[in-house]
Amino acid sequence: MKSKRSEFLTKEPLSQQVYDYVHLRIERGDYAPNDRLPSVRSLAEQFGVHRLTVFKSYQQLVKDHFIYAKDRSGYYVCPHPAVKLTSQPDKTFTNAIDSGDVIHLHQKKNQKQIHTAQPLHSAASQLTKEDSLPFLSLTRRTHVLSALHQQDVQYQFSKALIDPSLLPNTYMSEYVKQVFDMYPKLLGTYSTVQGDFQLREVMAEYFNARHHMSLSPEDILVTSGATQAIDLAARMLIKPGDVVLVERPTYSTAIDIFRQAGARIVTVEMRPDGYDMEQLEHTIVESRPRLMYVNPTYHNPTGYVLPEEKRKLLIELAEQYQFIIAEDDTTYDMYFADEPPPPIYSYDTEGVVMYIRSFSKYVAPGLRIAFVLCKPWLMKEALTLKSLTDGGSPLLGQKIFEHYFTSSRMQTHMEKLRIALSLRKEKMEQMLTAADWQWISPEGGLDLWVQLPAHMNAIALLEKSLEQSVAFVPGPFCDPLPQGSEAYIRLSYCYTSEKQIEEGMERLLIAYANLL
Amino acid sequence: MKSKRSEFLTKEPLSQQVYDYVHLRIERGDYAPNDRLPSVRSLAEQFGVHRLTVFKSYQQLVKDHFIYAKDRSGYYVCPHPAVKLTSQPDKTFTNAIDSGDVIHLHQKKNQKQIHTAQPLHSAASQLTKEDSLPFLSLTRRTHVLSALHQQDVQYQFSKALIDPSLLPNTYMSEYVKQVFDMYPKLLGTYSTVQGDFQLREVMAEYFNARHHMSLSPEDILVTSGATQAIDLAARMLIKPGDVVLVERPTYSTAIDIFRQAGARIVTVEMRPDGYDMEQLEHTIVESRPRLMYVNPTYHNPTGYVLPEEKRKLLIELAEQYQFIIAEDDTTYDMYFADEPPPPIYSYDTEGVVMYIRSFSKYVAPGLRIAFVLCKPWLMKEALTLKSLTDGGSPLLGQKIFEHYFTSSRMQTHMEKLRIALSLRKEKMEQMLTAADWQWISPEGGLDLWVQLPAHMNAIALLEKSLEQSVAFVPGPFCDPLPQGSEAYIRLSYCYTSEKQIEEGMERLLIAYANLL
Repeated sequence: MKSKRSEFLTKEPLSQQVYDYVHLRIERGDYAPNDRLPSVRSLAEQFGVHRLTVFKSYQQLVKDHFIYAKDRSGYYVCPHPAVKLTSQPDKTFTNAIDSGDVIHLHQKKNQKQIHTAQPLHSAASQLTKEDSLPFLSLTRRTHVLSALHQQDVQYQFSKALIDPSLLPNTYMSEYVKQVFDMYPKLLGTYSTVQGDFQLREVMAEYFNARHHMSLSPEDILVTSGATQAIDLAARMLIKPGDVVLVERPTYSTAIDIFRQAGARIVTVEMRPDGYDMEQLEHTIVESRPRLMYVNPTYHNPTGYVLPEEKRKLLIELAEQYQFIIAEDDTTYDMYFADEPPPPIYSYDTEGVVMYIRSFSKYVAPGLRIAFVLCKPWLMKEALTLKSLTDGGSPLLGQKIFEHYFTSSRMQTHMEKLRIALSLRKEKMEQMLTAADWQWISPEGGLDLWVQLPAHMNAIALLEKSLEQSVAFVPGPFCDPLPQGSEAYIRLSYCYTSEKQIEEGMERLLIAYANLL
Repeated sequence: MKSKRSEFLTKEPLSQQVYDYVHLRIERGDYAPNDRLPSVRSLAEQFGVHRLTVFKSYQQLVKDHFIYAKDRSGYYVCPHPAVKLTSQPDKTFTNAIDSGDVIHLHQKKNQKQIHTAQPLHSAASQLTKEDSLPFLSLTRRTHVLSALHQQDVQYQFSKALIDPSLLPNTYMSEYVKQVFDMYPKLLGTYSTVQGDFQLREVMAEYFNARHHMSLSPEDILVTSGATQAIDLAARMLIKPGDVVLVERPTYSTAIDIFRQAGARIVTVEMRPDGYDMEQLEHTIVESRPRLMYVNPTYHNPTGYVLPEEKRKLLIELAEQYQFIIAEDDTTYDMYFADEPPPPIYSYDTEGVVMYIRSFSKYVAPGLRIAFVLCKPWLMKEALTLKSLTDGGSPLLGQKIFEHYFTSSRMQTHMEKLRIALSLRKEKMEQMLTAADWQWISPEGGLDLWVQLPAHMNAIALLEKSLEQSVAFVPGPFCDPLPQGSEAYIRLSYCYTSEKQIEEGMERLLIAYANLL
């Protein structure tokens, strides 16, 4: 337990994070040999850290022979950074692949050295540390979050997943049997890349009726969950070094995906009333994003909703400055009272929006079904990439979902689910009133975004609360920037029963009291 | 029909292919502004084309202001290649993303120009041509192959897929119902990133018993088909510009995946007795690959088998020169007489092999189940990436597969399947004897790799044979190099009945006769 905990509680110093970022960009070749690096000032602004922090990182990179300084004119990339690697086996980026480079460079000078190179297994053993292939090193956060989810705790407020006991499991099992009576050869059928045509027909009708869209089955792609859809968007639209604009805070897996794609992440604050549109346009003009990832409805983690007016304005910005909006609308149906405003995609006439709508997590997570809606020119690329990614999602789950989705059961289930979630939310808020914490009560979604008193650190609170067998997501996990969310926590009320919420929150407040 | 056909029969001139390749590398930033490009000679060698062809491509790139020539010293990348794009809307690489760049560059000089920029929808309409986002432009081959597969022909020799009538469909349907009686809450259960533990236990036992391995469930990752596994390998191990070594010819989707990852593809000839190991080592020393993709057992498309001795030598080369072997063993169980030699992975002690074994295509393609076997240091990265790719394969198919795989039915089915395939192969070979074509009879697998007389062009033959409602895969589709496979065709005998094979081959030979 102790070791496991330390795995995600150790926080890197800011200068190390900046170091890793710059090093990754050099590794990727975003910064070529002898390229000039961003100024200390601009990088400090980008990371929202003090200039001395960036200065410190640059000093270390110079010390490690990855970059060199020219008087007055700034910092530049060393011709062969990899050469230095073997001399510092303790560095996180020393690994088999790099040592391959090293050999390559030596080998030109002296063939004999090929055989003296560090053997792969020793590199491998290094990789079993916190280390990682250099071009994956910024995805460590993933280990971190999954390590948190793997915590065997009694009160699981860290998972934004639906409590399985709220799902129509037994009915679904019966249902599957009916599906197989309908399609005895179902498992022998090859799935298509875009997804089952009948399912796409059904979904086109659904979206057209509900959101006044004019979709045809060709405008819909079936993906294995929303995660795959976000990954497709990143791979289609992002080259290393490109700017992705994301809300702050945001979905931590999305941050990992964009970093994995080599994106430069720029943020816009998500407020109770959405973004400051002037500030947003300024940021867009400054950073020229290729992609903006948004979660406008019951936003994760805040639960905020982007107002209808700003949805229309966002489309105009995307058209004017020519970037693509990836609209992740996973929680659209999780409203407690009034329905949310129409999706941003429903205002899209020029084809600037990639709309991502997940359903299966509210019905049958075992199916992993989501849909991407977009215009033909984006769909063409999405299909190419999907065919290279997995050749198409499994057909079985698609047919099961199709028949459940079209049944009257679906509507009834969703209504019950909304009620159950709102009751759990109320219970959690009722328990929270005992503390001097602040939050804005969401009108839908799965989480509360809670601000602790300024002096309180979320990571410290998590450590204490784990001793009480309570888990939650600390603010920094949802923040693309290294600083500013230390006093926030995400409490998910969707995975635990009201009784568990009552007991778990009591324990959380005890953990909090122990820190005061 | 006509238009559809032309979609994949139009062959780009070699110089255009070289042009696209160099342009892609510039787009990706592999070649930075003012970088020196490879010499005409070296690029000609790499592509296996005449130097004049490369010279022609470079001349066009100069004309299009992407590169410039310096007397005697060679060709270099222009500082801002994108700037010129809008002046040539007819070029394949003009598109929304580029025009975004254009604006960016103008905008620094003159804010006003932002609004005069080419609107996104016109860029979009360009993309509905053969065009593609620049960093995807080399995946056009995918459209091509899928376009071929979509041909509505009577005699389908182009699909290396198992004839659904050879699959245990009805039995599987019954089976699924039993699975749901065993796991009524199956669909309400969240899948893990690595895959169902019980299934991984079952597979570990299977591999340990059959191949004398010592796997634990932690050494196995469940993926959605072999395609996803190859894509994971590429994304884990390849950065743009890295070298991937592949057999020639090879699986065309793998070529697309590695190009998508920005790899420089280097080839080794696949011969009836495997590779020339001296030639292979020479190529490795020259090109320093990070990854070698191999399909050593009933190789696609040739059906050849890499002998046991060379499997052991390949491991030694990977350890010595420190590259990873991605071993795609999809057809391992499709032997007609004796079992093939053990997987390369079974000789791997240092952890240099990522073993990819697909099963579901021989049982229930609707399930899409494959397995990746590798050592912990690779598994750690594979899990991180898998979690960002789709969060784990759907649980439903895994449980169904697990229970079928462990049933006695599985073994019986596989034996029946092997017999059916060998009979179909014999029928196809019997029909082929009528022509002056050459092939080596494979001892397993799904395809015949047939050499036409030197004067015959596979693409021309395909055009004629489609008129006879017969489809096959022309050699160039399986060749990473632009030249040398024009006189080869791949004939798959797995998707059509013996009767269809008889009729279809007669028609193919008629098409052939019409070309003489």
